[in-house]
Amino acid sequence: MIVVQLKDHCSSLDIARVCDHQERRGGQVRVVSGPQGPCVVSDGTGVDKSLGQLPSVKSVSSTKSSYPMASLEVFGPQKPLDLGRGMSIGGGKMAVMAGPCSVESREQLLETAKGVASSGASVLRGGAFKPRSNPYSFQGMGVQGIDLLKEAREETGLPIVTEVMSPEDVEWLAPQVDILQVGTRSMQNFPLLKALGKVRTPVLLKRGMSATVDEWLQAAEYILAGGNSRVILCERGIRSFDKSTRNTLDLSVIPLVKSMSHLPVIVDPSHATGRRDLVAPMCMAALAAGADGLIVEVHSRPEEALCDGPQSLDLPAFDHLMGRISRLMEALEPEATPWSLKVAM
Amino acid sequence: MIVVQLKDHCSSLDIARVCDHQERRGGQVRVVSGPQGPCVVSDGTGVDKSLGQLPSVKSVSSTKSSYPMASLEVFGPQKPLDLGRGMSIGGGKMAVMAGPCSVESREQLLETAKGVASSGASVLRGGAFKPRSNPYSFQGMGVQGIDLLKEAREETGLPIVTEVMSPEDVEWLAPQVDILQVGTRSMQNFPLLKALGKVRTPVLLKRGMSATVDEWLQAAEYILAGGNSRVILCERGIRSFDKSTRNTLDLSVIPLVKSMSHLPVIVDPSHATGRRDLVAPMCMAALAAGADGLIVEVHSRPEEALCDGPQSLDLPAFDHLMGRISRLMEALEPEATPWSLKVAM
Amino acid sequence: MIVVQLKDHCSSLDIARVCDHQERRGGQVRVVSGPQGPCVVSDGTGVDKSLGQLPSVKSVSSTKSSYPMASLEVFGPQKPLDLGRGMSIGGGKMAVMAGPCSVESREQLLETAKGVASSGASVLRGGAFKPRSNPYSFQGMGVQGIDLLKEAREETGLPIVTEVMSPEDVEWLAPQVDILQVGTRSMQNFPLLKALGKVRTPVLLKRGMSATVDEWLQAAEYILAGGNSRVILCERGIRSFDKSTRNTLDLSVIPLVKSMSHLPVIVDPSHATGRRDLVAPMCMAALAAGADGLIVEVHSRPEEALCDGPQSLDLPAFDHLMGRISRLMEALEPEATPWSLKVAM
Amino acid sequence: MIVVQLKDHCSSLDIARVCDHQERRGGQVRVVSGPQGPCVVSDGTGVDKSLGQLPSVKSVSSTKSSYPMASLEVFGPQKPLDLGRGMSIGGGKMAVMAGPCSVESREQLLETAKGVASSGASVLRGGAFKPRSNPYSFQGMGVQGIDLLKEAREETGLPIVTEVMSPEDVEWLAPQVDILQVGTRSMQNFPLLKALGKVRTPVLLKRGMSATVDEWLQAAEYILAGGNSRVILCERGIRSFDKSTRNTLDLSVIPLVKSMSHLPVIVDPSHATGRRDLVAPMCMAALAAGADGLIVEVHSRPEEALCDGPQSLDLPAFDHLMGRISRLMEALEPEATPWSLKVAM
Repeated sequence: MIVVQLKDHCSSLDIARVCDHQERRGGQVRVVSGPQGPCVVSDGTGVDKSLGQLPSVKSVSSTKSSYPMASLEVFGPQKPLDLGRGMSIGGGKMAVMAGPCSVESREQLLETAKGVASSGASVLRGGAFKPRSNPYSFQGMGVQGIDLLKEAREETGLPIVTEVMSPEDVEWLAPQVDILQVGTRSMQNFPLLKALGKVRTPVLLKRGMSATVDEWLQAAEYILAGGNSRVILCERGIRSFDKSTRNTLDLSVIPLVKSMSHLPVIVDPSHATGRRDLVAPMCMAALAAGADGLIVEVHSRPEEALCDGPQSLDLPAFDHLMGRISRLMEALEPEATPWSLKVAM
Repeated sequence: MIVVQLKDHCSSLDIARVCDHQERRGGQVRVVSGPQGPCVVSDGTGVDKSLGQLPSVKSVSSTKSSYPMASLEVFGPQKPLDLGRGMSIGGGKMAVMAGPCSVESREQLLETAKGVASSGASVLRGGAFKPRSNPYSFQGMGVQGIDLLKEAREETGLPIVTEVMSPEDVEWLAPQVDILQVGTRSMQNFPLLKALGKVRTPVLLKRGMSATVDEWLQAAEYILAGGNSRVILCERGIRSFDKSTRNTLDLSVIPLVKSMSHLPVIVDPSHATGRRDLVAPMCMAALAAGADGLIVEVHSRPEEALCDGPQSLDLPAFDHLMGRISRLMEALEPEATPWSLKVAM
Repeated sequence: MIVVQLKDHCSSLDIARVCDHQERRGGQVRVVSGPQGPCVVSDGTGVDKSLGQLPSVKSVSSTKSSYPMASLEVFGPQKPLDLGRGMSIGGGKMAVMAGPCSVESREQLLETAKGVASSGASVLRGGAFKPRSNPYSFQGMGVQGIDLLKEAREETGLPIVTEVMSPEDVEWLAPQVDILQVGTRSMQNFPLLKALGKVRTPVLLKRGMSATVDEWLQAAEYILAGGNSRVILCERGIRSFDKSTRNTLDLSVIPLVKSMSHLPVIVDPSHATGRRDLVAPMCMAALAAGADGLIVEVHSRPEEALCDGPQSLDLPAFDHLMGRISRLMEALEPEATPWSLKVAM
Repeated sequence: MIVVQLKDHCSSLDIARVCDHQERRGGQVRVVSGPQGPCVVSDGTGVDKSLGQLPSVKSVSSTKSSYPMASLEVFGPQKPLDLGRGMSIGGGKMAVMAGPCSVESREQLLETAKGVASSGASVLRGGAFKPRSNPYSFQGMGVQGIDLLKEAREETGLPIVTEVMSPEDVEWLAPQVDILQVGTRSMQNFPLLKALGKVRTPVLLKRGMSATVDEWLQAAEYILAGGNSRVILCERGIRSFDKSTRNTLDLSVIPLVKSMSHLPVIVDPSHATGRRDLVAPMCMAALAAGADGLIVEVHSRPEEALCDGPQSLDLPAFDHLMGRISRLMEALEPEATPWSLKVAM
């Protein structure tokens, strides 16, 4: 495929001219908003020198990648992605998202939110719409849960992330929250991914529990190709034969994805392991592997949690973990992962 | 099952009395040499107070574990395990084993051995008997390879580890090397494990590529129950649906195994990932997760390797990695993993 | 949980009385339309003898199952499920669904439809909305494809099955087709399953590519608990480490599911194997294992298919297969699977 | 690689001349006994017309296969393989092997042996050396078990199959039994495979629980390249994420392997499913998929079995199954699988 990077401040008419120039030569094109401004993606039919000579064209890249918008090769290294409230992730910025699996009550959420904020979390997580395997299980507080998250944001100043499950919820939910999460069961929910391409809210795209890295990046490409360039990848464990942990955390994908894509990638050790005592070591391991951040389940009273209590840290354990993380990050500082990769190659 | 820990310096006759005492009551017993001296393991039949009152009995522990000799519950935390040549592993001692996948020539091995020694490796690895999927592939240098490893040991002062594939090789190979490796395909080669229980050479037991943690610890139990208490576990990646890495490195088992067993556990990121550029980040991740050490493929000329070249580090990359590791270990120092686990629980 | 089977012809008021009776005792209830008429499902709180004595209550069953509406234990063996146009499936009726992966043109669809009809297929399959891993791939003909399927139905008299991907498509699509398919990537798309619970069109629920049998039956329960009792299960292969076939066809689930649920279960050997030459043997195997039917990709010109050509049978191969199937079914006739299972137990 | 098929009745000197001819040209060669008599396998170096013109050379085939001796391409369709006592398998001959998981007592074995013989089994199975995950579990009756199997053979006239676990057992065990079984944990026990290449006893090679089809055929190649052409493959279920059955029976490999290799392939539904009630349907499915036979666990008193009782059929259930099988085989008769595959292609 061909990615045509357009010059800054070019008008809709300029863009239309680039499209027309390719369509006249039989090419199929679409306009997408790339990390460095508007691009035209073409199937490459009838591409010749004349394309690069158009006044509004900055550069023309050809790629064999099945996810050109997500590829490192085409767009180069990431810049930090703004999460709102002064927080950002990627491009050297590490962010820890923390909070309860599901919003259960005003008291539970605010208590937990204040706790994780004071320990140095960057983002508050909390589920309002819960995907549950069983139709008779607690399905989340819904809209009321969103209101509580917004209240907690005002209290703590932390941006909020919550899961969206249905395409028709994207439009109304996007303005309410700072990050929209796509759960592991929805990674290939293509109507949902298309809807998320139409908004500008950052999307946290969890890896499907049996998705290959290639399928994961193509799922991100659905959102990017739709026009939303704000995508964060999240490894949360894959399905394997071994049930000694809830899932199998696949940390090798951290440096692997960073060698393929410019998108930030974080790790969810809580769903991956399903065991509180394994969360802290796996947080350390994820960051040592070069992850751009973490998403951790924290509950002010894990023993009372309606959902995922056994894998939730309590506030003192989270505070202790954040101390270990800051010492770790200093030790990792000197060599950023990309450089060490170059050396190792 | 019941584990009877005997007092130090107790005689064969003392041990026989304990066995007899149980057999008279219908119990099935076996004498094993535990990490804290000789033990009698019994199926528990006819156990009563009188057993604890025998003069040579130090303690009596009952366990539901299917691997009593390997279990943390019965024997408590590990002590460092002596690897010879002044090196040790476990109980707070971290060891890096490095060297080529297979011994290919005198020059290749000595060049690589000197390189890894000068960068601070603790053990030299090298395969002389190679398990190959295809009968027509290079099967290793055999006995000649062992001689070259011994020469390299003299040159560098590093203890040596090599793979043993056949029960009849154990007796003659054990005195030649410092550590005997059991490969992933042999983890449940029970005749081999029984033969290894009869020697006193430390055994590096790699996890089977589709073995559960429970099967892995029971495989270790075969060696321990045979009388050899010197077992080191090694995670080397499991089989999953995703082929973007050679195997899927399952780092969650590091803290998991440490919560179940007193045996040291190390990580092999070379076979796990199959990609040179992923080895360094996964080494860092393994140690951050609490691993007692690493085994890394290093080759003085990876491009000329007969086997696994694409996953081998060259000497400068290994040296650079060792520098990063030492800085990492300092940052991890303050809290040993076990304690942080306690906090997180 | 408690399932209260109500008597036939009982009024809304009768149903309300049963609900009220339980709610007064603190129970949570929902009314669902079971395979034998309306039921009240309750969490069991405050259930006593008085419940069974209510005039409109036919029976009260208690179950530990996480999918009471789908369970064989509660509702007993299946009856044939009407698919329209005189076709049915389950309860001893075997049905073969056949057609192209995707509707590509009027000529392609009609040619294929007439071919499979004349060979004895019971249902015409064809995708109009295609879930594709890559956003730049052909996404199906959409509404136009539905119109072509309806035309093919008129031409051949075969009921039609097509995939629905989005909750908002369910309401308008349900009246157009005879069976709505839920693809493997949507098995846990809970908003979609809830929408399908509100219509009365039969639903073909494919197993998720990494779904356990328990998760699969709970996904069916979402549709059943929503009020739509017309669910057909479809095994289409799971993800495993072995890529010598596209997926791993898990035929053991056929007798397994039949021992757990009253729902009909069919097999898709085309997506499971991804290889035309394996489709016929796997069709035979599926029926010998006791499947209630098959869904097979057939294309009048496989070499020209826009999607899944390599796994599509051509018309002569499908016709030959149908001949083998009819001879096989005669040989299987004498002992229905359930009975042989009893014997084997 | 190059496979040189030699003419019948050619002398050792003739063979030596062919080897010499290639070695002079720098080729690496080995002599193997192929299904159609002696062959010379060469790496292809320096092969030219002159090779085919040597008097003792019947044909010269070149192949890219990593398992030339096992490949259908090189050697064409299988002939029936003689199992002794008038029984054979493959090339259109179907064989059912049946008996207890392990030999437990004279009474148990003889009772079961007579039962399966009278129901029409072709081979008696029974384990004397048992691979057990736990070192404290029953490890089999050993040599005494072999003697009981031989007695049962005299009583019933059925050839016997039993597992061999250690290379040093091959030489003495081979003359005692009719078929030597390689268990799933030993599929890549290369010293064992090499030892089995040196005898002429048929080998039943079970697929490793996480082995790809390619690895399985290369494991067979070890035996074939060693000089033993009598290999039978056995699919017994692979490891997957789903634990609703003990393993996942991968029946698609039956037609797949038959399209790649001339070796007979059978199915073990007992270990695959781990559930008695699933064994009969999976036997039917395996044969409908084109398997050359079955190996089924049968016990005269399953409730008293020391090992695998829950998956063992009792004698009446086995007798009933054999009746269903004979009716099924008649219905499958008209079209042998290979031909239908050609049609489907």
